[in-house]
Amino acid sequence: MTGTPEQVDYQQLAAEIMERCEVLGRISADPDHLVRVHLTAEHKIAANQVEEWMKRAGLQTWTDAAGNVCGRNEFGRGSAPALLLGSHIDTVPDAGKYDGPLGVLLAIAVAELINNSGSGLDVPLELVAFSDEEGTRFGNGLSGSYALAGAFEPAWWDYTDADGITFRQAAIDYGLDPDKVNEAARRADELVGYLEAHIEQGPLLEDADLALGVVSSIATGTRHTVTITGQAGHAGGTPYDRRHDALVGASELVVGIEQICSTGGTIGTVGRLQVYPGGVNVIPGRVEFSLDLRAETSPQREAALAEIEAAAAEIAGHRGLGWEIEQFYTSHETACAPWLQGAIAAGIRATGQSEAPMIWSRAGHDGMAIDKITDIAMLFIRCAGGISHAPQESVTVEDVALALEAYEEAVRRSAAAAVAR
Amino acid sequence: MTGTPEQVDYQQLAAEIMERCEVLGRISADPDHLVRVHLTAEHKIAANQVEEWMKRAGLQTWTDAAGNVCGRNEFGRGSAPALLLGSHIDTVPDAGKYDGPLGVLLAIAVAELINNSGSGLDVPLELVAFSDEEGTRFGNGLSGSYALAGAFEPAWWDYTDADGITFRQAAIDYGLDPDKVNEAARRADELVGYLEAHIEQGPLLEDADLALGVVSSIATGTRHTVTITGQAGHAGGTPYDRRHDALVGASELVVGIEQICSTGGTIGTVGRLQVYPGGVNVIPGRVEFSLDLRAETSPQREAALAEIEAAAAEIAGHRGLGWEIEQFYTSHETACAPWLQGAIAAGIRATGQSEAPMIWSRAGHDGMAIDKITDIAMLFIRCAGGISHAPQESVTVEDVALALEAYEEAVRRSAAAAVAR
Repeated sequence: MTGTPEQVDYQQLAAEIMERCEVLGRISADPDHLVRVHLTAEHKIAANQVEEWMKRAGLQTWTDAAGNVCGRNEFGRGSAPALLLGSHIDTVPDAGKYDGPLGVLLAIAVAELINNSGSGLDVPLELVAFSDEEGTRFGNGLSGSYALAGAFEPAWWDYTDADGITFRQAAIDYGLDPDKVNEAARRADELVGYLEAHIEQGPLLEDADLALGVVSSIATGTRHTVTITGQAGHAGGTPYDRRHDALVGASELVVGIEQICSTGGTIGTVGRLQVYPGGVNVIPGRVEFSLDLRAETSPQREAALAEIEAAAAEIAGHRGLGWEIEQFYTSHETACAPWLQGAIAAGIRATGQSEAPMIWSRAGHDGMAIDKITDIAMLFIRCAGGISHAPQESVTVEDVALALEAYEEAVRRSAAAAVAR
Repeated sequence: MTGTPEQVDYQQLAAEIMERCEVLGRISADPDHLVRVHLTAEHKIAANQVEEWMKRAGLQTWTDAAGNVCGRNEFGRGSAPALLLGSHIDTVPDAGKYDGPLGVLLAIAVAELINNSGSGLDVPLELVAFSDEEGTRFGNGLSGSYALAGAFEPAWWDYTDADGITFRQAAIDYGLDPDKVNEAARRADELVGYLEAHIEQGPLLEDADLALGVVSSIATGTRHTVTITGQAGHAGGTPYDRRHDALVGASELVVGIEQICSTGGTIGTVGRLQVYPGGVNVIPGRVEFSLDLRAETSPQREAALAEIEAAAAEIAGHRGLGWEIEQFYTSHETACAPWLQGAIAAGIRATGQSEAPMIWSRAGHDGMAIDKITDIAMLFIRCAGGISHAPQESVTVEDVALALEAYEEAVRRSAAAAVAR
C-alpha cells in the first residue's frame, strides 16, 4: 500500500477489500450457501484470516475471552484511550458477503493506510471483529459486543443451538473459558469512541442516488416467540367443525402482523416458523414462530405489539386455540454521538459527496452494546436494492472506495476531536 | 388363553391387548412423544416384540424383504391360499398408541384364539405387521404394503429423510437388501383376501353411539409439496413496498386452503411447513409446505385442487412471488369387497350390536396397496372424540373386547366364504 494521502489509490484498495470479502464469503459451513455462525470451525478459520490481515496492517493482535478478534496500533500514544473501529464476521443463514465483513475489512484498510502514511494518529487505534452479532446460532445477538462492553449475561451460556449444544459447551470446544468471559470487558476510560462502517441494508441511499450516509440512531427492537396451541389430529378423520388447527390460526396471525405493521411505523417480520408434530397427514397441534419488531421509538413498537396481541386473542378465541407471545430479546433505541456523527459527515463530504444524509438504522448493530461504555457512530454504504441477509447482497467497488476515503478521514477527525474534548 | 368360544373371556383378552398397546407405545425414538418410524432402531425393537407375540399365538414367523413382520398358521390346509390379517407398527410424529398397533394386536389375538380353539380354520391364516404405512420418515406412505403387493417403486429408494439419509441406505443399515425387495411380493393366487381392524380416526361411530363399523371404501388422496418463492432480505432494512415475503404469501394460501376445503367435500390439511432461510431477522425467501387432500371421489378432489391453484396464482400475483404445487403421492379410492364386508357386518352383529354402519375411510390404509392383489375389507373401532395422530388417541377396553369378538367371527366367516366361492 502507498505512503501519503495524495498517493492513495482508493479504487485499488477497494478492489482488494472486495477480494477479501470474497475470501471470507467462501468460509462457510455449507459450500452452496454462506452460513458462518458463532464458535464453529468456520468461525475460527475466518477469525484466523482476519487476525492475519490485522497483523499485516501493523496491528498487535489478540483474541479476547468472547472470541472477538482484536488489534491495536498505539501510534506512539502508549496506553492512552483508543478509538475503536469494528464490525462482525458472523452471518445469518444463507447470508450475503458484506453484512459485517465489509465493515471489518474497511477498518483494517483504514488502519493500514494510517500506519503506512507515517503521519500517525492523535490517539491509539483499536480494531475488533465481533464474533456474534447476528445471534443466528444461540438466538441472542450482540453477545460478542456485550462481552466487550462488560454486559455479557451468564444466563446466555445455557442457551442451546438447533442441535442442543449449549453456548457454554460450544465456547469450551472453541477453546474459550466461559468463566473468564469478563476478561473481554473493556473500561470506559480505555476508549474515546467507536466507529463502524456497514452496508445500509435498506434502499434509502440508493433511492437518493448517494453512496454514503450518517446513522442518526439505531432502532429499538424486540424479538418474541409466538406459540399457537391447538389439537393435533388425523388429517383425514377430523371434520372441520372439530379442528383446532394451530397452523391455520398461526397463518391468520402472520397475515395480521403484516397488516398491522405495514400500516404503522413499526416493522414486523416472522422469519422462523416451526410446526409440530410436523407430519404430512397430521393436523398441526402447535406452531412456534419468531416475531422481530423494530421501530424508531419504543412507544411505536409497543403500540404495534399491543395490536398484534389483540389479533392473536381474537384469532385464538374464534378457533379454540391457545396463544402466548414471549419476549426473548430487547434493545432500546441507541443515539449516535453528535461529535462522531460530525466526523463521519465531514469524511463523507471530503469524498466530494455534496450532502451527508442522516438515516436511522432499521437493523441492530454492535454499537448498541458498545454504547454502554463509549460514544458510537456509524457510516452507511449504499447496497443494491436495499437487499441484505440474502446472497444477492451487493455493493460496488466504487462505493467501497468512497467509503474507505470517508472512513479514513472520519477516523483522523474523530481522533483529533477526542484529544480536543 | 382359553379353549372353546363359549369359554372365551373377551374382556380379559382385550385387557391384554390394551397392555400390549402400552408396551409398543413405549418403544419410541423420544421418551416423551411416541415416534417410531421406518427402519429405525425402535422399529426393529417393536418388530421383534411383535414377532415374539406372533410366535406365542402359534404362527410360523419371518421378516420379509421390505421389513414387514409376517406369520402363518396353516391349520392343516398346507399351501392353500391364505386369509391375510394385518395393520402397521410405524407411527406419525407424537403419535397415539392405537393407530396401527391395535389392528396388529387384534389380529394376533384372533390368530391365537383360533389356534387355541382347536376348531381350526377353513383356510391358512397369515398375519402381517406392515413396516411403513404413515410414510413419516421418507414421505411416501404404504411402502411396506406396496412391497407385499409387488408394487414397490425403485425410485423410492432415493427418497431422503430429514437428515439426508436415503431410504436405500436406511434399508441397508436395517439389515435389508434393497435389491431383493421384490422377494416381499406376494402373488394373487397365494391369498383369498385381506382384513384389517383399525380405529376409526373420526367421530362418526362415537356420534352414532356404536362401537364398531364396516368400511365401505377408502378415500382417494393426494399429497403435494407447495413451494412459495419470494426474496430473502434483512428484517429491518427492507420496507414493506419492497418485500416479497414468502411466508406471508404462504400463510394467505394456508388460510385459503381451509376456506376452499371446509366449504366443499374435500379435506385439505397442511401438516408440515418449512421456512427458508429461517433466521429470526431475515425475511423468508422460500416456504415449502405439504398439502394433503382427501375426498370420497377423485373428481371432488381434483376440483378442490384447481381452486387451490387459482388461489395460489392470485396470491403470488399480487405479492410478486413464485409458486409451484407438485404432487408426490396419489391414491385412488379403494372399494372394499362386498363378500368380506358381509363377513365383518355379521361379526359386528354377532356381538349384539344391532346395526353395522358403513363408513368411508377418510384416512388411507395399507388395504389400498393390498387391493392390487386381493380383495380387502376393514373393521372400524370407535375412538374418543375422533382424535387420532395425537397422544390423546383413546379407545376403551370394552370396545376392544367387542372388536375382538367381531373380528374372530369375521375371520371365520371370511375363511368359510372363501372356500365356498
